[in-house]
Amino acid sequence: MTEVKSDIEIARAAKKKPILEIGAKLDIPPEHLLPYGHDKAKISAAFIAQQREKKDGKLILVTAINPTPAGEGKTTTTVGLGDGLNRIGKKAIVCIREASLGPCFGVKGGAAGGGYAQVVPMEDMNLHFTGDFHAITSAHNLLAALIDNHIYWGNEQNIDTRRVAWRRVMDMNDRALREIVCSLGGVANGYPREAGFDITVASEVMAILCLANDLRDLEKRLGNIIIGYRRDKTPVFARDIKADGAMTVLLKDAMQPNLVQTLENNPAFVHGGPFANIAHGCNSVVATKTALKLADYVVTEAGFGADLGAEKFFDIKCRKAGLKPDAAVIVATARAMKMNGGVKKEDLGREDVEAVHKGCANLGRHVQNVKKFGVPVVVAINHFVTDTDREIRAIKEYVATLGAEAVLCKHWAQGSAGIEELSRKVVELAESGHSQFAPLYPDDMSLFHKIETIAKDIYHAGEVIADKSVRDQLHAWEAQGYGHLPICMAKTQYSFSTDPNLRGAPEGHTVPIREVRLSAGAGFIVVITGEIMTMPGLPKVPSSEKIFLNEMGQIEGLF
Amino acid sequence: MTEVKSDIEIARAAKKKPILEIGAKLDIPPEHLLPYGHDKAKISAAFIAQQREKKDGKLILVTAINPTPAGEGKTTTTVGLGDGLNRIGKKAIVCIREASLGPCFGVKGGAAGGGYAQVVPMEDMNLHFTGDFHAITSAHNLLAALIDNHIYWGNEQNIDTRRVAWRRVMDMNDRALREIVCSLGGVANGYPREAGFDITVASEVMAILCLANDLRDLEKRLGNIIIGYRRDKTPVFARDIKADGAMTVLLKDAMQPNLVQTLENNPAFVHGGPFANIAHGCNSVVATKTALKLADYVVTEAGFGADLGAEKFFDIKCRKAGLKPDAAVIVATARAMKMNGGVKKEDLGREDVEAVHKGCANLGRHVQNVKKFGVPVVVAINHFVTDTDREIRAIKEYVATLGAEAVLCKHWAQGSAGIEELSRKVVELAESGHSQFAPLYPDDMSLFHKIETIAKDIYHAGEVIADKSVRDQLHAWEAQGYGHLPICMAKTQYSFSTDPNLRGAPEGHTVPIREVRLSAGAGFIVVITGEIMTMPGLPKVPSSEKIFLNEMGQIEGLF
Repeated sequence: MTEVKSDIEIARAAKKKPILEIGAKLDIPPEHLLPYGHDKAKISAAFIAQQREKKDGKLILVTAINPTPAGEGKTTTTVGLGDGLNRIGKKAIVCIREASLGPCFGVKGGAAGGGYAQVVPMEDMNLHFTGDFHAITSAHNLLAALIDNHIYWGNEQNIDTRRVAWRRVMDMNDRALREIVCSLGGVANGYPREAGFDITVASEVMAILCLANDLRDLEKRLGNIIIGYRRDKTPVFARDIKADGAMTVLLKDAMQPNLVQTLENNPAFVHGGPFANIAHGCNSVVATKTALKLADYVVTEAGFGADLGAEKFFDIKCRKAGLKPDAAVIVATARAMKMNGGVKKEDLGREDVEAVHKGCANLGRHVQNVKKFGVPVVVAINHFVTDTDREIRAIKEYVATLGAEAVLCKHWAQGSAGIEELSRKVVELAESGHSQFAPLYPDDMSLFHKIETIAKDIYHAGEVIADKSVRDQLHAWEAQGYGHLPICMAKTQYSFSTDPNLRGAPEGHTVPIREVRLSAGAGFIVVITGEIMTMPGLPKVPSSEKIFLNEMGQIEGLF
Repeated sequence: MTEVKSDIEIARAAKKKPILEIGAKLDIPPEHLLPYGHDKAKISAAFIAQQREKKDGKLILVTAINPTPAGEGKTTTTVGLGDGLNRIGKKAIVCIREASLGPCFGVKGGAAGGGYAQVVPMEDMNLHFTGDFHAITSAHNLLAALIDNHIYWGNEQNIDTRRVAWRRVMDMNDRALREIVCSLGGVANGYPREAGFDITVASEVMAILCLANDLRDLEKRLGNIIIGYRRDKTPVFARDIKADGAMTVLLKDAMQPNLVQTLENNPAFVHGGPFANIAHGCNSVVATKTALKLADYVVTEAGFGADLGAEKFFDIKCRKAGLKPDAAVIVATARAMKMNGGVKKEDLGREDVEAVHKGCANLGRHVQNVKKFGVPVVVAINHFVTDTDREIRAIKEYVATLGAEAVLCKHWAQGSAGIEELSRKVVELAESGHSQFAPLYPDDMSLFHKIETIAKDIYHAGEVIADKSVRDQLHAWEAQGYGHLPICMAKTQYSFSTDPNLRGAPEGHTVPIREVRLSAGAGFIVVITGEIMTMPGLPKVPSSEKIFLNEMGQIEGLF
């Protein structure tokens, strides 16, 4: 390569194929592809239902070390590996999450991958895409409107207006909506009460859409949402105010996975995008399951590092959807190893083998954790131009001591040609039949014990502490029949501990539980261990100021 | 017909053609049709730009008497006339507004037309359709977030937080959001202030999208939006906080008109849907102008009765877009004439020629009003099964005394076969070259005089009254350079007067102005003469309770 092009330049130069051709590669007949423009399509629910009896392909999870400011390139590696598998003759589909529109106007919008390992059309995927998030916003806010309307007209369900548990959502970074008082203005507008908005990706409807198996399951889960509590503390459900049917209607199209393509014209499913803290942070079950019916290999990723993302992928998504991953890829970089080894961001350009070696403790912990789920692991070293041979060798040697292999990958610069070795290794692991996947804890373990198991086995914490009120709440849910639910940990993504500044592989720390929340529709208990922001704000100079259509009608400033 | 089928039964039985085939009828090449599923498509901006030099077809406005609970069937007649013109060998396109999603969950959703004169796909058009309204919601709320963010970070523009003029919007009937206090919760969330939400169709962004000629014009108008005032009362514009570029990016796709089809597989453009009270109530200028380039005849409609809808269509849309309508159809029914003549709804089934004759005064006033704009008029009597020959004859004889013709139309029951006579009459009027269209008042008339002109010439009011504060405000806008703008009247649609119970053709009444608002981006002055609700509520038993997906995956309860 003579010059380095930006992601957007590469994306714009992509030779996209008509989406019907991409679908044809997967034997999806044109009548079952619902196009959105010429480069996006939804796969019809009818076609998905027809695939039920087919054999599943192999499922590969791409996860990572704890994120650092150096960047790891998890999505880039996911996309690259998908292209790499196709290159070596496997029919492979990439499954990733949809992007949220709101944050694009605060800081730069997120690309789907980077360099020569990207999914396109990039602009659409950062904006309205196929409207899924708008549909989720509508369904969520319909329920909110129905709750206040129910109260307005007499409150037959006796909802305690101090205990309405359902906020509203908007796909926008708008701090002014975090805490509001609604229903002001007198008799015609209702009973004033405290309320607020979250960003759409934090909606329980988002988590539900991503975990539901089909429209019937979706409707049932929507009905199970707890919208608030009566004065006697008994929960009121969405089904009690007959909201589930109409919400399902609003989500009918959004439930169908979206098909797009990589720069190398291989199929990618981009569907769903739940938060990775208060929710499980994976793309939809429907997309993953459909992809498994249509391909030999499905490459998917989970949010944040493996301590949060892979754990939730295994313990929530795979457990509930009956998925059995065949191999896992843990993405690391020499730069991130150096940061974990104590090097500052401005010094990352200098070789520092000692720091790499020291920082490898973080990687090692993730490798061992993922193995606890019975899934074979390979480490992908996502290559940066400043990496030295000695640094790469240090990582490889370290990983070898763990009984695993680390493979250098150059997909960012070279596309699939740069990731053949990893692709072959992934095939070898997946075909070996060595995967003995099992979740970390059984369904019938007590809720607090589940939390302790995650904290001790995955985070290597010494203890979990929680006020009596938290423990009482967990017991109360067990008594109400929610004890079988898995745990969804909301913890900082930057450390194994609850202290974001504690890099490497800390041990014996304390995990304090601030709050627990029941997502009865999604089907998990959220355990909050720190500050969780569910409605971001905009910076002093939001990126929106630089976003515009240029003379050619192209979007500038979004990337 | 042996049995009467419901609108939804007829719509579901429709033999839709692939949308590419419908586009081909208009010589739109497939690469310029951006499909949304197989039965909806957007027409690319690039294709639209290529049509600039082409000759325009004839423009036909369908308007109506003041609406009554009996129903008039304006959209049904618009669709029927489009089919009728195609039937008699003219290439015709129907241009109508998009439906709002929110109200569908309160009362039954609106069909686009009725009987055998409908536009399909009905379900999609009542729900997310092609996402235009969601895009408008996003663009509107991005501006709102940017305003509060601007204030939060130091308020460089010195916006008086008591005078923020930009509310938020949601496409939902949610009375709890009408009046709120936002930015509560302390330092991190901003400066608490009173705020609120309107329904999306009431957004000025909606009006702007419908009046803009292209994306450049759109961006300019968005920049002209007044977001609030400083303590010295000077206006702060959206461009002052650099919001216009990003808002335009969000609206890029929404600016492209949507192509769907009638039950008879004729093309229909469904695009935009501004309120007909605080806005002008017509489909988009882009859709109408594009249709004129592609067809011999374009049939479009305006909101409410001719006193509001036609007047705004002529004085706002046609004036600003340089459109010259060739003929107008005024829709009336024998039942509505009887209601105007004093008959109660429960007695409408009985013949009452006297009441029909008495009620014709309302129709007559509208016929004479439309003629004032220099546009030739024909009356369409939309046939109901209970109509008697004597009643129909009474209407025809009355209209003849006005120098016009009334034609009986049976498109509801028979489709295009039932509306051939009207179609031929419309062609005769349009081809006659008799249209001498001119707006009611010149641009350079004073604002108050414009209001008086509409009130006296169209409403036949005796006087317009307004507080000194209102008159002062109008003068202030004139001094600021807004004196050339047209007036957008917000008045009850049920009467020529401001009293909704005053049917027929009242004269000499008083029009009191409660409030005036400047829509500087859309480019009109809103004059409010009564209670205007910009955020509806839900009824005690919202229709959402009966909306669900049936076993076949079809939507029940929406219609």
